[in-house]
Amino acid sequence: MIYLDNAATSFPKPACVCNEMDRCMREYCANPGRGGHALSLKAGMDVMNARDTVCRLFNIRDSMRLAFTKNATEALNIAVKGLATPGCHVITTAMEHNAVMRPMSTLERDMGIEVTLIKGNDYGEVDPDDIRREIKSNSVLIVCTLSSNVNGIIMPVGEIGRTAHEYGIPFLVDASQGAGALPVDVESWYIDMLAFPGHKGLMGPQGTGGLFVREGIRLRTLMEGGTGSNSEYEFQPEIMPDFLESGTLNTPGIVGLGAGAGYVMKTGVANIHEYKSHLTELLADGLSQIPGVMLYSPADKDRNSGIVAMNLADMDPAKLSLLLDKDHGICVRAGLHCSPAAHSALGTAGRGSVRFSVGWFNTENEIMYALDAVDRIAYGVLG
Amino acid sequence: MIYLDNAATSFPKPACVCNEMDRCMREYCANPGRGGHALSLKAGMDVMNARDTVCRLFNIRDSMRLAFTKNATEALNIAVKGLATPGCHVITTAMEHNAVMRPMSTLERDMGIEVTLIKGNDYGEVDPDDIRREIKSNSVLIVCTLSSNVNGIIMPVGEIGRTAHEYGIPFLVDASQGAGALPVDVESWYIDMLAFPGHKGLMGPQGTGGLFVREGIRLRTLMEGGTGSNSEYEFQPEIMPDFLESGTLNTPGIVGLGAGAGYVMKTGVANIHEYKSHLTELLADGLSQIPGVMLYSPADKDRNSGIVAMNLADMDPAKLSLLLDKDHGICVRAGLHCSPAAHSALGTAGRGSVRFSVGWFNTENEIMYALDAVDRIAYGVLG
Repeated sequence: MIYLDNAATSFPKPACVCNEMDRCMREYCANPGRGGHALSLKAGMDVMNARDTVCRLFNIRDSMRLAFTKNATEALNIAVKGLATPGCHVITTAMEHNAVMRPMSTLERDMGIEVTLIKGNDYGEVDPDDIRREIKSNSVLIVCTLSSNVNGIIMPVGEIGRTAHEYGIPFLVDASQGAGALPVDVESWYIDMLAFPGHKGLMGPQGTGGLFVREGIRLRTLMEGGTGSNSEYEFQPEIMPDFLESGTLNTPGIVGLGAGAGYVMKTGVANIHEYKSHLTELLADGLSQIPGVMLYSPADKDRNSGIVAMNLADMDPAKLSLLLDKDHGICVRAGLHCSPAAHSALGTAGRGSVRFSVGWFNTENEIMYALDAVDRIAYGVLG
Repeated sequence: MIYLDNAATSFPKPACVCNEMDRCMREYCANPGRGGHALSLKAGMDVMNARDTVCRLFNIRDSMRLAFTKNATEALNIAVKGLATPGCHVITTAMEHNAVMRPMSTLERDMGIEVTLIKGNDYGEVDPDDIRREIKSNSVLIVCTLSSNVNGIIMPVGEIGRTAHEYGIPFLVDASQGAGALPVDVESWYIDMLAFPGHKGLMGPQGTGGLFVREGIRLRTLMEGGTGSNSEYEFQPEIMPDFLESGTLNTPGIVGLGAGAGYVMKTGVANIHEYKSHLTELLADGLSQIPGVMLYSPADKDRNSGIVAMNLADMDPAKLSLLLDKDHGICVRAGLHCSPAAHSALGTAGRGSVRFSVGWFNTENEIMYALDAVDRIAYGVLG
């Protein structure tokens, strides 16, 4: 089986991730930060270590500003809904995932916020100046994906951050695609809020993610509940990360995320990007030579986080992915990838595309095998 | 080490829970219900099986009405905030956890809802007639815990459900304490929404939980995002469970929860309650004979889900729990347990109590050891 769906969930996981989670489940999965007994302290310590590791990866200086969430979607909802107020204005891009788009549409409908969607070039890449031109006096938030989950295009997040900072508008980055493979730095990129999943580039398990919130950014909570702190206080305690972490944390998941992030740091983000870029380029170049293939992703490493989006002639993407799975044992993903606006921007609306997404554990041989498979299918269809 | 903090997180877990999670992490942790490839289908199938198992446990007839959440707190927030409207009236009890109390306080402050708190008897047990008397024309929700996380008292949930049903008011039950040990039946107890954690009585991992929503109950979403369904639709798809499940699910966690719930069903909820009640009674009776001990929990099995709350003379609960941990290797929890109102009701406000909570894997010997430890500490203090 060849797994090329790493943009959904990276797989396989480093052995240390599985080992640490299993050890947690069997040896000490008590409530972190609640009881003061031995198991609870061990769980709390491991959660703290995971928090520190993730923060080092993103250059977050105060690890208390990082809240763990169940996935990036929760983090994005907390950030967007925590800031938006009736009648406010938000700027975002046409390449965002439904995890940004659907909260936006809901707030437009229910709260009367105004959303400006910035369109990009043929690959969806936005021009920071286009964002600058849309800034208004009631703009309260700029949201941009680090890299598209449809075609892998890397956005000029650092430049957008500088613009946002210049105008004093909070800047939220959706790092779902790219965290762990691109050098995310909340300081030099002027990121005020960073949402990320644990189960993609950070190589941790599903059920994990997080939100960094820069000191000084005041949010409303999406959820309130037990935090193990200030229990007598009837509202949510305002100290971070408790403010955004209600209820029992996912200790085994967070321990796995910490192990994954540690593995990424040890391996080196730059090395991971270099290697994934090499495979991506191999894949994109190979596909571009197959008759009937249309590509929607750039091949050069400075512009792609590791995704090749394509279609084959007029074949239904679902059919192509099914053939790749059934006849060749290759796992890819077909469809709209929860990003209809991005497909509109790329000219694949209605139809969608097939997405190949590479990971650290893929090999050149797997890419060659996948290219051969597409070639055979193309030959069968087009003769 | 003797673990008596099962009301926080049950520990240890059945081997099948750890084994299934580990197998998922190593073999097939792809995205359930997203891609159509082999690994994704396997993940999706296992999530579906877990959903079915949990539904059988609670007599939920249509498993599509059960959404998985990260914990009971998320489920309670979705339920309470999904129904509340400005100026509405909600009835709940003084024994609720902060996972209910804090959302209520926040909605009182921000949305102007009105909350009526029903007080109970000395153990916090409410009289269903007291709830009936508070029902008003704008009452939109009745919320009650199945059992208190402070002292284990079991609430007359079935009777309250009948009252709610009679008046046509949605009834939300927080089954955080009791699910897996009490015969929760959403049909015979007239439960319209059931919130539960996966990591306590269901013996699954932290990071899991769920919310049952009866057909006909219309909620607003707390979060929106990718669901893998109706991707082109700009709002959240209205079909359950997708409506309440945004972003990638915690597949390994849910697989573990399914294994835990399966273990509970095979063992038998009645057997688990019987055994836990026996240990609870042993503990409560033993403690009651130690000089200086004050008990806040009933000992009889029809009224207690497995918790013994106590204090020793005027000793700070934190000190007693520390001595139990350091000198005797016994894990219990001291403090307010995120339920300050419950402590007010029990007369332990400000001070809190020490909570012993038993689980399926505790033994009589462990209880005897714990009693001996408290006895020694009492002797040391009181002479």
